[in-house]
Parts: sequence; C-alpha cells; structure tokens
Amino acid sequence: MSDPVQTTAKRITRLEVQGARNVAIAAIEAMEILAARTEAPSKKDFLRELTKAKETFFASRPTEPLMRNALRLIVSRVEKNEEKNVKKLAGIIDQASSQFLSELKESSKKIAEIGARRIRHDSVILTHCHSSTVTGLLKRAKHEGKMFEVICTETRPVFQGQTTAKEMLELGVKTNFIVDSAVRFYMNVVDLVLVGADAITSEGNVINKIGTSTVALVAHEARTPFYVVSELLKFDPATMYGDYEKIEERSPHEIWKDAPKELVIRNPAFDVTRRDFIHGIICEEGIVSPHSITEVMHRKYPWVFE
Amino acid sequence: MSDPVQTTAKRITRLEVQGARNVAIAAIEAMEILAARTEAPSKKDFLRELTKAKETFFASRPTEPLMRNALRLIVSRVEKNEEKNVKKLAGIIDQASSQFLSELKESSKKIAEIGARRIRHDSVILTHCHSSTVTGLLKRAKHEGKMFEVICTETRPVFQGQTTAKEMLELGVKTNFIVDSAVRFYMNVVDLVLVGADAITSEGNVINKIGTSTVALVAHEARTPFYVVSELLKFDPATMYGDYEKIEERSPHEIWKDAPKELVIRNPAFDVTRRDFIHGIICEEGIVSPHSITEVMHRKYPWVFE
Amino acid sequence: MSDPVQTTAKRITRLEVQGARNVAIAAIEAMEILAARTEAPSKKDFLRELTKAKETFFASRPTEPLMRNALRLIVSRVEKNEEKNVKKLAGIIDQASSQFLSELKESSKKIAEIGARRIRHDSVILTHCHSSTVTGLLKRAKHEGKMFEVICTETRPVFQGQTTAKEMLELGVKTNFIVDSAVRFYMNVVDLVLVGADAITSEGNVINKIGTSTVALVAHEARTPFYVVSELLKFDPATMYGDYEKIEERSPHEIWKDAPKELVIRNPAFDVTRRDFIHGIICEEGIVSPHSITEVMHRKYPWVFE
Amino acid sequence: MSDPVQTTAKRITRLEVQGARNVAIAAIEAMEILAARTEAPSKKDFLRELTKAKETFFASRPTEPLMRNALRLIVSRVEKNEEKNVKKLAGIIDQASSQFLSELKESSKKIAEIGARRIRHDSVILTHCHSSTVTGLLKRAKHEGKMFEVICTETRPVFQGQTTAKEMLELGVKTNFIVDSAVRFYMNVVDLVLVGADAITSEGNVINKIGTSTVALVAHEARTPFYVVSELLKFDPATMYGDYEKIEERSPHEIWKDAPKELVIRNPAFDVTRRDFIHGIICEEGIVSPHSITEVMHRKYPWVFE
Amino acid sequence: MSDPVQTTAKRITRLEVQGARNVAIAAIEAMEILAARTEAPSKKDFLRELTKAKETFFASRPTEPLMRNALRLIVSRVEKNEEKNVKKLAGIIDQASSQFLSELKESSKKIAEIGARRIRHDSVILTHCHSSTVTGLLKRAKHEGKMFEVICTETRPVFQGQTTAKEMLELGVKTNFIVDSAVRFYMNVVDLVLVGADAITSEGNVINKIGTSTVALVAHEARTPFYVVSELLKFDPATMYGDYEKIEERSPHEIWKDAPKELVIRNPAFDVTRRDFIHGIICEEGIVSPHSITEVMHRKYPWVFE
Amino acid sequence: MSDPVQTTAKRITRLEVQGARNVAIAAIEAMEILAARTEAPSKKDFLRELTKAKETFFASRPTEPLMRNALRLIVSRVEKNEEKNVKKLAGIIDQASSQFLSELKESSKKIAEIGARRIRHDSVILTHCHSSTVTGLLKRAKHEGKMFEVICTETRPVFQGQTTAKEMLELGVKTNFIVDSAVRFYMNVVDLVLVGADAITSEGNVINKIGTSTVALVAHEARTPFYVVSELLKFDPATMYGDYEKIEERSPHEIWKDAPKELVIRNPAFDVTRRDFIHGIICEEGIVSPHSITEVMHRKYPWVFE
Repeated sequence: MSDPVQTTAKRITRLEVQGARNVAIAAIEAMEILAARTEAPSKKDFLRELTKAKETFFASRPTEPLMRNALRLIVSRVEKNEEKNVKKLAGIIDQASSQFLSELKESSKKIAEIGARRIRHDSVILTHCHSSTVTGLLKRAKHEGKMFEVICTETRPVFQGQTTAKEMLELGVKTNFIVDSAVRFYMNVVDLVLVGADAITSEGNVINKIGTSTVALVAHEARTPFYVVSELLKFDPATMYGDYEKIEERSPHEIWKDAPKELVIRNPAFDVTRRDFIHGIICEEGIVSPHSITEVMHRKYPWVFE
Repeated sequence: MSDPVQTTAKRITRLEVQGARNVAIAAIEAMEILAARTEAPSKKDFLRELTKAKETFFASRPTEPLMRNALRLIVSRVEKNEEKNVKKLAGIIDQASSQFLSELKESSKKIAEIGARRIRHDSVILTHCHSSTVTGLLKRAKHEGKMFEVICTETRPVFQGQTTAKEMLELGVKTNFIVDSAVRFYMNVVDLVLVGADAITSEGNVINKIGTSTVALVAHEARTPFYVVSELLKFDPATMYGDYEKIEERSPHEIWKDAPKELVIRNPAFDVTRRDFIHGIICEEGIVSPHSITEVMHRKYPWVFE
Repeated sequence: MSDPVQTTAKRITRLEVQGARNVAIAAIEAMEILAARTEAPSKKDFLRELTKAKETFFASRPTEPLMRNALRLIVSRVEKNEEKNVKKLAGIIDQASSQFLSELKESSKKIAEIGARRIRHDSVILTHCHSSTVTGLLKRAKHEGKMFEVICTETRPVFQGQTTAKEMLELGVKTNFIVDSAVRFYMNVVDLVLVGADAITSEGNVINKIGTSTVALVAHEARTPFYVVSELLKFDPATMYGDYEKIEERSPHEIWKDAPKELVIRNPAFDVTRRDFIHGIICEEGIVSPHSITEVMHRKYPWVFE
Repeated sequence: MSDPVQTTAKRITRLEVQGARNVAIAAIEAMEILAARTEAPSKKDFLRELTKAKETFFASRPTEPLMRNALRLIVSRVEKNEEKNVKKLAGIIDQASSQFLSELKESSKKIAEIGARRIRHDSVILTHCHSSTVTGLLKRAKHEGKMFEVICTETRPVFQGQTTAKEMLELGVKTNFIVDSAVRFYMNVVDLVLVGADAITSEGNVINKIGTSTVALVAHEARTPFYVVSELLKFDPATMYGDYEKIEERSPHEIWKDAPKELVIRNPAFDVTRRDFIHGIICEEGIVSPHSITEVMHRKYPWVFE
Repeated sequence: MSDPVQTTAKRITRLEVQGARNVAIAAIEAMEILAARTEAPSKKDFLRELTKAKETFFASRPTEPLMRNALRLIVSRVEKNEEKNVKKLAGIIDQASSQFLSELKESSKKIAEIGARRIRHDSVILTHCHSSTVTGLLKRAKHEGKMFEVICTETRPVFQGQTTAKEMLELGVKTNFIVDSAVRFYMNVVDLVLVGADAITSEGNVINKIGTSTVALVAHEARTPFYVVSELLKFDPATMYGDYEKIEERSPHEIWKDAPKELVIRNPAFDVTRRDFIHGIICEEGIVSPHSITEVMHRKYPWVFE
Repeated sequence: MSDPVQTTAKRITRLEVQGARNVAIAAIEAMEILAARTEAPSKKDFLRELTKAKETFFASRPTEPLMRNALRLIVSRVEKNEEKNVKKLAGIIDQASSQFLSELKESSKKIAEIGARRIRHDSVILTHCHSSTVTGLLKRAKHEGKMFEVICTETRPVFQGQTTAKEMLELGVKTNFIVDSAVRFYMNVVDLVLVGADAITSEGNVINKIGTSTVALVAHEARTPFYVVSELLKFDPATMYGDYEKIEERSPHEIWKDAPKELVIRNPAFDVTRRDFIHGIICEEGIVSPHSITEVMHRKYPWVFE
C-alpha cells in the first residue's frame, strides 16, 4: 500500500496538482488518510508522524502558503488537544480539515461579495494571468447585473490569460485580449486592476505571476486603482522570520523550445509587488491596507504564527 | 511593363519589405526607375509625377519616417534645382538617392562608434525587440574588445527578440533571454538599456515596438540609464504639425491563432516612450537630449521641414 | 404628536442640521425620545423599532459615519443587554447616548492636546474648508502661547473658509485668505497642513471636502507634512465590506445661479485623499499611520464591526 | 490734444484693456498715432520719443510679453532702417505694425489647425480659465466635425471659466462646469488638458492664470497629456536675463468684498507651470518641447533678443 | 554616599555613557541600587522615589526611548504588584531589570537570526554610521558562511563609520569606505541598505544618525531595498501623544574646531526617515511594515503605553 | 631653458594649479610662451607643435573642459588664418588668448548680473563646495543691497565649504555651516540652491563636486529650485561623441590618513547631476534649460565642435 503523503507530495512537486487551493486540498486529504491508517502507539508518536508528513509537504514546493497554513492548523489542533487516544486524535484531524475547507469556501464567497461592490457600471477591469478568486469576484458582479468590460493579458510563457478570457466570454462579458507588454498602452482607459496572489509577505508585499509588479507600476503611474484579491491564508509566516519568498524558476522550454544551446533562458514564475502599489487587499476580512497585514493575521488567524 | 511605384508600394503595404531602412531603400529605388523611364515633357510635369509617387508611398504605411524623409529629400532636390531638362533632372534623383544612402550608411557607422564608447567593461545591457542599429553598436563594442552581457526580451507577439539573441550568440556574447514581463524582475542588475526607434516626434518622444515604453518606465524606476539608438532621419516632421504618430494595429492572428470568435484581440505594433524616460538619443550628431530634437533637425537636416 | 425619527431624519436630509457632530447628536436625541415614548410590548418589538429608526437615519444622508457609529453603539448595547424590561432598556439607551457624547467630547479635548504639540513656534499652518476639530486644535495651541500664522482657502462653492478665517481672527492669529487654486503658489512657505475628515475608509483613505486631495498632493510634492485631525469614529465600517464611500453631489446652484440651461454643472461635495499623502491621523488614540486604521479600530472600538 | 501713449498706457494699467492680444494692439495703435503726429527734427530725436513711449508701455503692467515684443519689433525696425527722414520712418512703423498684427493672426490660424489634429473623436478636454487661443483651437476641431466634450473650471476669483463655458455651448459642444478644486476628482476621465499662456520663460516654464500649475500637477499624476496653446511671441526675453516673471497681485475685493479688516487676502493672478509637466507647446512653429523654447525663438524671432 | 540616580544621570547627560543599550543598562543599574538602599516607609513613598528617579533620567537626554521604556517597565511592575512590603518590592525591581536585560539580549539574537536570512550570497550591503544591531546581524550572516561586501559611510562629524569599517575588516569582510556624499555615486551597485534606529515614532518613522534619511531617499530613487534593524523597544510612546522627537543638536566643535566666530554651525545629531522609504523593520517580532508599528507595540509590549 | 608646456602640464597634473579658470589660464600662458619662442620653419610645423602641446595638456587631467575649449579655440584660429608667416601666426595666438580671457571675464560679469536678479530679499541660499562663479554671483547680489542668508556644506573630504563660508562672512552675509549629510534636514527652509560646474555634457547633465547630485535630488524632493551657475565653455564636446566624463578618483588619504590596510577607500571627486533636477543653467547667454545645451553651444560657440 503506497504512502499517501509521499505519493501526493510527488504529484505536487511534478506540478500534477496545480493551483494553491488544489494543492492545499490534496495535502489535507493525504493527512486524513495518514490519520485513518495510523498505527502510532502514542500521541507523541502520532505527532512525530504528522510532523514528518508536514515537512515532506513543505519540501514539495518552494512556496505554497495556503497548503502550509492548512498543515500548520491541522498539526497545531492535534498538539493542543488534551485527548491522548490516537484514534480519537485522528478524528480531530478530520474536523480541522473540514473546518479549513469550509472556511476557505466561505472566504471565497465573502471575497466575491465584497469585491463585487467595487465593480462600477460600465467600467473597464484589467487582470493579469488567471486567478479563480478574481474570476469568482467578476462572476458575482456579472450575476448582480453589472455591465463591465475586461482586458486580459495573455500572460507568457504559459498563456493562462487564455483561460481567463474564455471564462469571461462564457460569462457574456465583453473581453479584450492583449500581449503582456501592451498593458501600458491601454492603462489610461482602465478603471480598476484586479489580480490574485500566490503569497503575501509580512511586509505587505504580494507574490504573484511574473509581470504582476509591472502591471502595478504602470497602474500607479496612471493613478489607476490596483487591488489584490486573495484569501488571507495566502499569508506566508516564513517571510516574517526573514525567509525571502523563494521565486521558483521554471523550465526554459516554456519560453523557447528549440532555443540555441548557449542561450541562457531565465524563467522566474513570480515577482514581488510592493505594498505601495497596492490600494488594498480584498479578503474575507474586508478591504484592508497591505501595510497592516501581519496585524490582521495576528487578530484573525493567530495560529499561523505558532 | 509594371509600374515600379505601385508595385513597390504594394509590397511595402503587404509587409513584404520590412525594416525602416529596407523600406526606404525600396522606395528610393522605385523613384530611380521612375526617373529613368519618365517621359514627362517638362520639369513641371516631372515634378507632378514625382509628387504623385511620393504620395503613393506615403499612403503605403501609416508611418515610415525614414522612407518619407528620403522621398522629401529627393523631390526637394529636383524642385530647387535650376535645371529645366527632365533627363538631367533624373540624374539629380540618382545623386540625391546615392547621397541619402551613403549618408545613412555613414550615420550607422558613426552611431556604432559613438555608442560603443558607452559600453563599459563587464556591464549588462538590456534590449527590447530587434534593432539593427542597436546590434550594430554592440558588435562594434565587442570588436573593440569589450566584455559585456546582454538580456533580450522575447518581444511578443512576433518574437523578434529571438533574432537579437541569435545575433548576440554568434558574436560570442553571453546572452540571456526572458519573457517581456520579466524585465522588472531583472532591472536592478541591468547597467544600460538600449533600444531602437521607429519614429521620433517633434516633442522628443520615441515610437518603438510595443512594450518599449514599459521598459523605459521600469528603467526609470530603478535609475538605470535608458538610451535610444537611432538615425536622426527617423524624425517625423508630421508630428510637428499636429499629426499623432498613428499606431499601426496588426493582425489578431499574431497573438492567438484559434481564439474564440467573440474575443476582441488588440494588437498595437508600437507605443510611445516619453522623452522624460530617455537619457539621450545616440545619433550621428552625437548623444543629444530628446527635448531639443526639433532644433537638432533644423540645424542638421533643415530640408525635412520643407 | 410628530414622529421624532422621521422629523429629525428629514431635517438631516434637507441639510437643516450640518456638521458630523451635530448630525450625530440630533439622531441620538431622536433615539432617546423614541425610547422614552415607546410602547413596545417586548424587547423584540423594541429592537424592531430601534432598527427601523436606525435604517431611517442611515438613509437620510449618503454618508455620516459618526452618526451611524453612534446608532450602531446604541442598538448594540440594547441587543446585548440581558434586561428584558422595555422601560429599563430605554434607560440603557440614555446611558449609551450619554457615554457616546461624553467620549466624543473627551476625544476632541485629547485631539486638541496631542495636536497642539505639533504646532511649532512661528510656523505657518494651511487648512482647507472649516473643521471644528482643526480649529479646536489651533485654539488650544494659541492658548498655550504659541505664535503661528494661518492660511485659509476660501473653499468653493460654499466658502466655508470664511468661517475658519473669522474664527482665527477672533483668536488673534495672523490669518491669510486665498482662492483654492492658489494653494500650490504658497505651499513652499507652509510648515504644516491640517484638515478634518468626513469619513475614514478601511484602506486608510480620508473623505473630506472637495479639494482636500489636491491640497494633499501639492503638500506631498513640496515635502510639507499633511495631517488629518479626526475622531476615530469617523471610520466607516461599510468601506470595509466593499462599499465605496458614495460621494454626495450637491445642487448646481451652489456653483452658478443663473447658468446657461444646457450646461452640466457637477458639484461633488467630497473627494478621497489617499493614505500615502497623509503623514498621520491625529486622533484620540494619538498620532497614527492611516495604513493601520482598521486594526486601531478593532482594538479601540470593536463594536463598530458588529 | 491728449497724449496717445499716456492715455493708452493708463487704460492698460487700469485693466480697461484686457487680454494679451488686445493690450498689444492698443499699444501698437498708440505707437502709430505717435508716429503720425511726431514733430521730431531728426531720426535720433524720433528714436528717443519711441524709446520713451516703449518704456511707458513697459511700465504700464508688470508683464505683457506680447505687447513688449511688438514694441521691441517696431523700435528695432526703425533703428535698423537706413532711412533718415522722420516722416518716412513713421511709415516703417505702420509697416512693422501691420506685419506684426497679420503675423499674429496667421499664427492663431496655424495653431488652431495644428492643435485641432490632436483632438480625438469622443475625447474629453479639460481647460482652465479662458484663452481665446484654446477656444479657437476647439472651434476649429468642432468645425472639422469632431465630437468631443469639454470640462471648464470656474476659475476663481473672476470666473473666466463662465466665458469659456458659454463659448463652448454656443459651439454646440457638451460642456461640464466644475469648481477649481474638483479638477483632480475628474482627471481620470480627461483625455487631454489644454491651457493658454500669459508668458513663456527662457527655462521653458509657462506663466498662466493662478491654478494652472496645479492642473498640470494633477494631470501629471494621472498620466494625462497637458499642452500649452500659445503664440511664440508670449516668450518673455527678460526671463532670459534673470528677471523673474513678476506675479501681479490683484485686488483683495475680487476674492471677498466685505472681508474682516485684519484679514490678509492674497490674490496672485498667475502661477508658474514647470516645463516638466508640459507635454508640448502648440505654437505657430508646430508642437515643440518647452525645454528648447529659447532656441526656437533664436531661430524664428531672433529680434526679440536684441 | 553619592546618589546613584543623580550620578548616573549626569554621566548620561555628559555623554560619558553612550549607545542606547549602555544608557538603558546604566539607568537600570542605578534603579537597582536605589531600590537596595531605599528607606521608604511605605509603598507609596517608595513609588514616589522611583517616579522621581524616572523623571531625573527622562530629563538627562532629550530622547532615549530604550532607557525610558526600561524605566516605564520597572515602575509599572512595582505599581501593579500587590505586595506592600518595600523590601520585597525592591526585589520586584531586580526581577524586572533582569527580565528586561535578558529579553533585550534575546531580541538581539533573534534580530540577527532573522536579518541574516536576508543577506544573499555575493551581495553588497551599504550601512551608515555604526549600529551594533546591524553589525551583529552581519556577523551572524558571515558566521553562517555567507560571502558579501560592505560599503561604510564615514559618517561626519564623528566618523562612527570608522568603527563599523574596523569591525567588518576584523570579521574578514571586504569593506569599502566612502564620504557621506558619495552614497548616491555607488547606490546602483548596492543590493541592500541596513541601518539602525535611535527611535521609532508612532507614525512609523525612524530617527537615526543625521544623513540616514538621505541614504533612504537615494535608495528609494534606485529601487534598492532599505531596512531598519532595531529592537521594538526603540519605539517612543511620547511620539504617540504629539511630542516630536526632539532632535538633539550637538557641539559645533565636532564640525569645525577653529571656525570663524560669526559662523553659525548647525549640528543636528539625527534626522527623520519617513516610513515610505523603509521596506521593513527587522525586529524581534520578525520583519514588519513600519506603518503598523503602533499596533505591533500594542500587541507585544502593551505596557509602554501605560 | 625648460619647456613651458611640459612644466605647466606637470603642475596641472600634480594639482599645483587648481580651479577650472586657473588651469585654463596656465595652459593659455604656456601656449603664448611656446608661440613666442617657436622656431618652426613653416605654418605646418608650427601647427604640429601646437597640436602636440594641446595633446600634452589634454592628457594632464582627465577632464578640464574650460582648458580644452581654450586650446581648441587657439589652435583653430591658427589653422583657419590665411597668414603663412609663423611669427605673425604667433601673434594670432596672443590675440586668441586675450580674447578668450577677456570673454571669460565678461561672462563672469554677465553671469553674476543675471543670477543676482534671482536672489530675493530675505531668502536662504544653499551652496555645496566652493565655486567662484557662485560666490561672484552672491557678491554682486550683496553689493546690490540684497539681504540673504547662506547655508554652506563642509564638502568632505577636502572641506572646500570652509572657503565658501569665509568668503560669505567677509561679505557680511549671515552664514550657516553644516555637514554634507545634513542638507536634507534643512532643505525645507532653503529658497534656492546654487552650485557651480566642472563640466556640462551634451545630454545636459552637470559634473560637479561629489555630493552635488544628492543635493539636487533632495532639492527636487522638496520642490526647491536648483540652479547651476557656469560659463558655457564648461561644456565638454567629448561627451557628444560618446565619451563618459571620466570621474577622477583621488587619493584615499584625503578621507582617512591612518586607515586599516585592507580597507578599500573610494574617493571619486565628482558626480553627475541629471538635467531633470536642474531648473536652469545661469550662463553668459542668460538662464537656459540644460536640455538644449548642445544647441546653445552650436549657436554661440560653434568652434568647440570642430
């Protein structure tokens, strides 16, 4: 019988699971299986197993704060619980997992609800890459009857903008499509920029798809509001303690398949958008200034710092 | 016998001739053939023919200042000449054409020579798109024995950055290749940005491949020097008299071949880089501030204003 | 016997009551009368009455966060109280009202005290519009023996700057008076800008009289400190949940009485000053960065989020 | 018989003649009368009379570069002419005057023609104060069939914006009217800002109605193009030689009629817009960068430096 | 027997004790002696003695937030303790002192650990003045095996940069040394700026050695990250309540020993770096945005506000 | 008999002659002696001697544009003169030298006259380093009866600010003296910054004492006007043709006499102030925008480009 943790961690590493939410769910489910099958003789042993599994998942991808925060929550619940019986502790894991997932769903709903209020009639929204949190917000706004137009960047090298464009067209929204370097050309007609987040740092910066920080700079230059739409649990507590978000560098083949051999192709997946270019983070707590994100986390999810 | 002007103009319109220099040469050669074959009975008639040809070429592409300036020079030389004999006037055209082409060649050489002095040992140069003036400058610097590294953007949608990258590798220069939206990620290690120009306006702004203005903004944000490398004859006198440089919009197929039908793909070929982001224009007259470009033209090429 | 809530709400709508503080007091007093006269048979019915009254007042003006927060406090106190007797609950309202008003008074005093320490001898203070919180601060500074000079803008269209100027002259302060568009002309001699607030948003932005954001931009350009002087209860929790502060648009007659018929006169009463132009908010909690305003509110007045 | 120079100069001082063009015309006409009536026995005496008259006009208002340049041209023509006969020299004045006026008219026409090309279909143009050069340009654009919308500021203290608004309505243009401090509120929907000039300095700065520099700053913040529309002869050569443009301060009664006595009302008529906020000067020479204005003047009107 | 409080306070005033940490330690030790020797008959009398001592130390130097916070802690611990016996209360002081000192040491360690993670291999670090917190961080990074280069400013007038340079050389780090005004010359090759803090204000600004704010501005201009490395207890709660950090002005002799008599030598010891130039504060709580510093303090050290 | 050219060139190299003007005068005088003593048999030989001398001087210091322009003028005058007689040609050198020196003197006078008009009553002027052109301007203003105050930076490492301070005190001007890094501390009270120039580049940038560019940045941040006071002949035509102004690096002993051996002391003498921070260049032609400096030179001193 295969080890669910090892198997899932490998799938995450190989990018067979993608998207912050899917990665978190996969890890949570592996933890549940681990708990169901455990033969640990004592709470101490069980905790050792859980911690080892957590570390395996932490090592599977350079950053995945949502997954990491889910694992932090699960392990911390077991640690704090006074129950000694391992089987009963396994039940705690199920509870914590369910709670995490239902809260995540609830957060998405709240974010869409709050953010949709910021979409004005007849406005032009620009977005970069594909973020289900952003498209969720736009769907909500559309269902509320708001008319708006969207500009999608193609988002090289993997063209995630095509996914965004298709979703918007299905929604019946007028959709424009441009190359990434045409953002500044159109910025003066844009009313609002919305992007997702891969991670949020303790300084209030946002890690997102390569090019996001340039979109933010260009929006800033034109006095166009720029908002990040994200669950708070994308916050990465490691940034608090000095670790830079490591920027994953992906395969050169994504950029140029038959490139000359001596060519050095650099393919960073993300960049860092400074808090000063971000008008607000639209999250389940409402719309907040990124500068106070650490305090928001301490108030709302103190366990991520444990 | 086909009409050389109509034929060439069509090839220009269909983009069968590309590159500012090649377009100018094609038009000049057509004018020479026209002159050789003319049967105009008088100077007045000959000038009418020339003017009609000039207008045909002007209409063949929204902007091509180098070609337009070449035609301006040729027609003006005939107008001003006191000769009345049409055959002899045709000779004037040959002279003007030769002079224009040899001056253009001379300009390229001077620009490479002047610009190469700005390349410092061990420096990192970033360039966007492909410009033979820029690569000429870098070749000169390399041949002078300077060691440097180049970062090329891929330049969507037509990937002209691949041409630049290949030329640089052939030259033996260490070459890095990135997607357009990764420029800001690497800007802090760049020592100098060099780009070409499709046109220069009377205000001192520069029209160049889409994305150039964003590279300039990003360089400005990081205090990295940004230079335009261009012959002065890219100056477009029409901008003087209120005409915006019309920004050509090219086929959506360049961006997404099998796009959904309702999708609006916008594909502007160029954008405008404001003079305030340009440290200097490296041209045949030396390195000048773009703010005084109109006066430089009045001093050096007064005939473009005629 | 007239309905005190309806009557007062109408007076508020018609601008017969003006100034955030006066509006809040009027609504509070109407709630007290309502409570004194109530014939509600049960707590549940009483709460229904109160909630209806609250909604009537919320609808009377697009934004009035101070009034709204007062009503939030009053209703919440009744809700949370374990008392079932309606008459006794009415007493709770009196207590909450008294407490709100005395805290408001106390806040004003503290703000004046804290802010006055920032007034330096021989300094020049610029203010826009009329804010009793700002003039209270300046009076305190004057009474402490500080010498300073004030520049008041006239504040079109309703000339509230004249009120400020008169108050300053009565105080014996040297007072200068300028048109709104002369602020930049004098900014280089200004040492400190102080303005009030109509509302504070969850992102840390400040809504105040039209023109305030321009004063802030001009101060920023000249490196002149710009402070907002305001009670924290101007914080509007609705902004947290995605509602833009709706900007009230007032009568065109305020701007041009006998204007041509086809003319579109736009008369927004307020504008939004971004947190990045605000050095600090001088409030009853001390001088704080606007970027953390939501967390300050959560710590100091958690009931506004209920 | 009254002295035409003294009489006209007084009318100019008392603001009975207003508008740069009208003031220049009045002074020119007085010079013509002076010349027609002169009894000067020699060219030297005649020149003395002319110079005295010139100085009288120069003293009549702190700045009026158009008038001053007209007088400079007239006196210089007489000085340089080899004619000794005073009566014939008086004729030179008539010629110079006519030429100046007809060139001025020609400039207006060219400016309107050049500038109108910059008005795009369906664009929103903001203007401050009233400038006949700006409204001339807009009329031309309208007559060419372009559809656009205008936003006029009221322009305190003298409400010149009302004149602009009326002219625009007569033209059949959709016209919006706002207080001066609402410019930033609307700037994000503005496509182009056009203002006139009272004077242009040798550094390339523009002196115009108080508030213009703030409009420019606000346009700059929002990346909205800001153009000055002006004849080159508004250039003031005195700024070349170190004289600040003296900023005229007008009557306090314009701002507040029955103000308290101790109040210091400051009423500067103009402010200085820095060249870096100006995209271009639309003038009879085309659209030029303000940074090179001195060289443009040396090329086009060298006599202003004499 | 001399009064330990008076004696120590005088030594602090005369700068015989220097460095925030040393000053705090000296004051704490004097308080311990005071407590050991006290003959106060009651808790009330003892508290009066302590308060008087506290005020003596507060008056000894214009700002020393670390010392002030230490004294605040000690006095507050005694006040809150229910013990009435004076001798036993003296023991409380020893405990509080020990705790403060050991926490301070612990903070230093954590800061070094967290900050060292931000030092990248082969990076160039610029620092201004001498800060033991900064050099502690660099030592830690070096001991972890990281290779980096340091640029030290000389830091006029007292040349503290020489101390920093010597420490770095002893550590075996490649060290460059420049005059203060050469910072901008080298900023483009700097990867990270690290400075200490003398005080942190409630707005999130940082008071540090004169010149720090200019280094920050220059770093900002070149997009170079700028971090403050400091214990949170440098936070000065007085700034909360409106007191400007008074900027100490030191002896003119430090600048020019034999200056001409009439010369006015100004020698401010510190300047204020605005929060917007600070990427983060590296403190014992992790890396935080300075904008939320007051809330961090309320969470971590609430007693400083008592 | 020693070679006057070699001797003088060595004195220049060893810094025994300092100050742009003194260096130019020394070189001119050596050329006059060379001409007086020449035994060249023909014009061609004489020109060869002159050119060799010119090159010797060019090699004596990395940049000295004033000296270089003087030598350019002298040699060009001989070349162009039709005279063949060597003795008579030597006279041409005397004439050219005299003319150059008298024009330089005249320029100084004009600059002082023009610049003094910009000094306002009761204003505060900040200057960096020592420039005789700047102090000449201030002397003129003082003699015209203007009252003003001066702030001098000490200008590390060689303390040239002490010379400026002494000159100002002798003039009877209230003089303040600060360390270089305190400029930002005082910038908000400064009305005008004036600095000299060592060289002006074709892009319009100014090379001046290390620290000047930081003063300019700080002035820009506070909207304080920043002017360069300089003769046009500081323009360096080599910058036109791609040569960077080489920044001289001086002895480390100027900075730290007994520094640790391993320490790398960097001592660049100058830095580059970008044209965008310079409001104007106050020169003999008036006050001009630096952006058009090349065209000003072409108009006024075309021979520097030969």
